Amino acid sequence: MSELIKKLNWRYATKRMNGQAIPQEKLDNILEAIKLAPSSVGLQPYNVVIVEDKALKDKIYQEAATRQAQIPDASHLLIFAAWEKLTSQHVEDYLKLVASTRNVSLESLAGFHSSINGGILSRGEEVNFDWSARQAYIALGHGLVAAAIEEVDATPMEGFDAAKLDEILGLREKGLRSVLILALGYRDAEKDPYVNAKKVRRAHEELFISI
Amino acid sequence: MSELIKKLNWRYATKRMNGQAIPQEKLDNILEAIKLAPSSVGLQPYNVVIVEDKALKDKIYQEAATRQAQIPDASHLLIFAAWEKLTSQHVEDYLKLVASTRNVSLESLAGFHSSINGGILSRGEEVNFDWSARQAYIALGHGLVAAAIEEVDATPMEGFDAAKLDEILGLREKGLRSVLILALGYRDAEKDPYVNAKKVRRAHEELFISI
Repeated sequence: MSELIKKLNWRYATKRMNGQAIPQEKLDNILEAIKLAPSSVGLQPYNVVIVEDKALKDKIYQEAATRQAQIPDASHLLIFAAWEKLTSQHVEDYLKLVASTRNVSLESLAGFHSSINGGILSRGEEVNFDWSARQAYIALGHGLVAAAIEEVDATPMEGFDAAKLDEILGLREKGLRSVLILALGYRDAEKDPYVNAKKVRRAHEELFISI
Repeated sequence: MSELIKKLNWRYATKRMNGQAIPQEKLDNILEAIKLAPSSVGLQPYNVVIVEDKALKDKIYQEAATRQAQIPDASHLLIFAAWEKLTSQHVEDYLKLVASTRNVSLESLAGFHSSINGGILSRGEEVNFDWSARQAYIALGHGLVAAAIEEVDATPMEGFDAAKLDEILGLREKGLRSVLILALGYRDAEKDPYVNAKKVRRAHEELFISI
């Protein structure tokens, strides 16, 4: 079994954390892995909000994510928030970033620009919000693997009151809507009833179809 | 820089592959990482179709994913296909799997069963298809990181004719709709104009918001 597979078998959706802080270097590696996640046309149409403050974690727990005891005892919460509305400004900013990073002219990217405008920007707002959310899920996947490699526990969560969380964090004013929480921290092996629970996954032949 | 971050910087969306086959062991590790990806309530509401046959890759290239030259020269295509319709049978099968894996009774999972029925199964078909697709994107993230660690090139793709691909692979009859292709193989460094292109990512302070 490869080292990665061992680490992925070690990870599980931790339900109780012990309040211990993640070392900065490990957090930085997890964030960098998230930053390096690919996205459709490279746009990264989301932001990731980092919450470390204990009072804020408690408020989120009380008001937006009750019954999820990992929230207050996590070291950090990463809130993946998709862009509510994709705009031409987003696309232009991105093309400027491509041009400056690769030292090419904006003019040389005109074909790419048209294809983003025609294929993506022209779609409806809800279609694009959903598309943006999906891209954030790729980044979540990167973050989960990176956390496992760093031996940091990570609990991905969809089950929270997104509207309330957006309000607490002031996300709508930033053009964002929360879609995922990733709680990072360390398992409390005494309090978490799932710490030794066997991992449940569909059998290889149920999940994969070879054609 | 950690080994993982080095590998993630090495990876890029390969546009030209060289036709070389991936060793079985590397493929197995990538598939296992995909299998170990978490999903909401653990349901894994998708399948992954593995295409290795050259004629089939060519057909997909010709009919469903033109202008994407990595398709015919990939070693394997992984097609992530979300469940078109989530059914009570899916939920029951999953609960049986949980019960048998963890050696607990189905009765002991009654509360979990109700919460899946109430929170997920009761939603509209399109909502659940979209939700299933999002779960597949987490698995894609796992697959991308695993491929990078194995030094296998991996190109994630959304831009294909999903209806046509579903037809070619007979997916609708299986209750599936394709949402993503992951082409796996090896870069053709001579033919791929992007092989040395600098990676474009939003700056840390543009992507992350510390609150």
